[in-house]
Amino acid sequence: MARINENYLKLPGSYLFSEVGKRRRIYVETHPEAEVISLGIGDVTLPLTQSAIEALHKGVDEMGRAETFRGYGPEQGYAFLREAIASVDYAIRDVQIAPDEIFISDGSKSDTGNIGDIFGIDNKVAVCDPVYPVYVDTNAMAGRAGDYDPATGKWDGLIYVPGTADNGFVPDVPDLTGDDAPDLIYLCFPNNPTGTVATKKQLKSWVDYALENDAVILFDAAYEAYITDPEIPHSIYEIPDAKRCAIEFRSFSKNAGFTGLRCSYTVIPKELKVGGVSLNALWNRRHSTKFNGTPYIVQLCAASVYTPEGQSQTKGLVDHYLENAGIIRRGLVGAGYSVWGGVDSPYVWLKTKDGMTSWEFFDYFLNELNIVGTPGSGFGPSGEGYFRLTGFGSRENTLKAVERIRKGSLL
Amino acid sequence: MARINENYLKLPGSYLFSEVGKRRRIYVETHPEAEVISLGIGDVTLPLTQSAIEALHKGVDEMGRAETFRGYGPEQGYAFLREAIASVDYAIRDVQIAPDEIFISDGSKSDTGNIGDIFGIDNKVAVCDPVYPVYVDTNAMAGRAGDYDPATGKWDGLIYVPGTADNGFVPDVPDLTGDDAPDLIYLCFPNNPTGTVATKKQLKSWVDYALENDAVILFDAAYEAYITDPEIPHSIYEIPDAKRCAIEFRSFSKNAGFTGLRCSYTVIPKELKVGGVSLNALWNRRHSTKFNGTPYIVQLCAASVYTPEGQSQTKGLVDHYLENAGIIRRGLVGAGYSVWGGVDSPYVWLKTKDGMTSWEFFDYFLNELNIVGTPGSGFGPSGEGYFRLTGFGSRENTLKAVERIRKGSLL
Repeated sequence: MARINENYLKLPGSYLFSEVGKRRRIYVETHPEAEVISLGIGDVTLPLTQSAIEALHKGVDEMGRAETFRGYGPEQGYAFLREAIASVDYAIRDVQIAPDEIFISDGSKSDTGNIGDIFGIDNKVAVCDPVYPVYVDTNAMAGRAGDYDPATGKWDGLIYVPGTADNGFVPDVPDLTGDDAPDLIYLCFPNNPTGTVATKKQLKSWVDYALENDAVILFDAAYEAYITDPEIPHSIYEIPDAKRCAIEFRSFSKNAGFTGLRCSYTVIPKELKVGGVSLNALWNRRHSTKFNGTPYIVQLCAASVYTPEGQSQTKGLVDHYLENAGIIRRGLVGAGYSVWGGVDSPYVWLKTKDGMTSWEFFDYFLNELNIVGTPGSGFGPSGEGYFRLTGFGSRENTLKAVERIRKGSLL
Repeated sequence: MARINENYLKLPGSYLFSEVGKRRRIYVETHPEAEVISLGIGDVTLPLTQSAIEALHKGVDEMGRAETFRGYGPEQGYAFLREAIASVDYAIRDVQIAPDEIFISDGSKSDTGNIGDIFGIDNKVAVCDPVYPVYVDTNAMAGRAGDYDPATGKWDGLIYVPGTADNGFVPDVPDLTGDDAPDLIYLCFPNNPTGTVATKKQLKSWVDYALENDAVILFDAAYEAYITDPEIPHSIYEIPDAKRCAIEFRSFSKNAGFTGLRCSYTVIPKELKVGGVSLNALWNRRHSTKFNGTPYIVQLCAASVYTPEGQSQTKGLVDHYLENAGIIRRGLVGAGYSVWGGVDSPYVWLKTKDGMTSWEFFDYFLNELNIVGTPGSGFGPSGEGYFRLTGFGSRENTLKAVERIRKGSLL
């Protein structure tokens, strides 16, 4: 008699974005004249750059000719892309990463979700709170999260490291040692959802903590391209010894606009060992057994990001979204809100006003200002009373939204 | 202290294709004048069809314009593709599959590997032997296979259902009932590596067996396009009641040549429940939590396969490889070999001569005929003494190889 993975039954409904969509839909149906602006979703809106489009067309032409057609590629990705990443994303920052420490994949959601495969079920997992829900849900599916308590919004088997206004939404290392210390630690900087960044000193405290406790840091750097402050590290490997304790995830989604094209990569340094076993070798086995490579044409397109034209055009996309985020941030500050992020990140995190819950504030923004954002409580209990806006809308809508926020009403 | 997934340490080296490559390399280095023909690998060689290329270029153009750019798509795949699949791959054979029973993905290797996520670790797994190694390795990684015994080439926790010359390499249902019966059963028809197909009666015996034992069949139909015999079912859902016990995997790799483009789909009927729980709902949760969709341009290209031009051009690819397989099959029969497959499949399976082991025969073919094939023993213990050739080479090389086989020597 077949049996399901019972852990799946413990998952609460995937509520956040479906509820956002539902409330928006109801409002629009009852207010057909309303011009509702969405600043809620983390999806890009600008088209692919010219160099990306040219690379894709070139790749497609190659796939149409017998002499240049490519079938199965290396599961780990083509050397031309892994070498470009090593030299442009890392060597340029004095971080030495070898191409065979880089695994090309189809998205950071897949990678941060699948990485758990190579770890035992008995690892204690720490997540920041608020948090990107994929880290939590995938550990719950694997049986590492224990049971979910709807009253607290927490899983009893996870360690929640709170981000709060007091720590500027950059959580400090937990006060847990020995057997109580976490074994796997998910970090995301620039952070989704709060838009905050970690300084070298802050990241170093996490690296030191991980090394002391033989823990592995799973570092999601999907938004590193948005860092403008030269003092903020782009990679966790800018911290000495991080190669011995950290896996890094990068994506082409938010810098080069690949959300619909799908390409990412995961870095696992060869120095990184757990119980004497190389995690690079384990992930290589996982990747080559359960994955058959990212499309050649997509990898060719990703490599175009590393050409001079690609770098410049990609920067154009990032600058555009950053300027949107800055407009939102300045507008919110001007309207008296407490705000985090929006400087080195496309995300702006704000405290609701008048003590509203995140969902009350959602309704206020939707009903009074016709702006859709994302309730902070959807990212974990410490997000309650906060709200996320994003710089991924159009410039025109962003400016309109900020005018409404300034006036506290529709124009 | 972090801990790895110890099951990974039980995996023997991924030996087969690396050893094939190594022996070939050594031979070529020591015989630089040799014209070595590869009929070993299951990768396509013809370029994408004209309609596929046109669809890709169209999609790329859309991604380059703001009005038509697409970011995140539905994780389950776009409706236009799911609807085309439902109507052309299924309704046409009187099988009613709803679009929301179809999940678009990036390859059957991913899907057949990841499907284990939704099942408990305590399921007993049955595989045919010889077998596509991914079914075995991914269950070993999950902890369902027990321990590997190098002496027998078997995992002590798996149930091996032998394919033999006696059963024509279409294994009969096992003689196991009650608690001894398997819970999850992997089947692949047309089969990789043996090229054999299952009749309706044979498939019905598996469906009946699964229903009797509350088992789930994981049916890999990646090669269904190669079926020419109108009596052979293309889908397991052509068997009554299979919707209550079977998941079906399909791929665009071997029919439309997508091995380097990456698209596949998995069908989970809503009738399929385990312990009262819908597997469709569980997989939907897995797919939307750990996957962010197949590239839009790839889905557009896959949809082009279902247009009249796409159907005709795709058939052209399949017919080409089938004719190659037929040439190999007839050549082998003419040379006195016992042969299976090569009729409704791109794979030709042969018994070695003079009692050679699979690897002895590999060396004989490489050294004497300068032909590279795949040793049957690499697919499991019942493959010992057999050898796989494929129709995926060029016509010219296929004809040359068959001439060498006929003569038993180089020309």
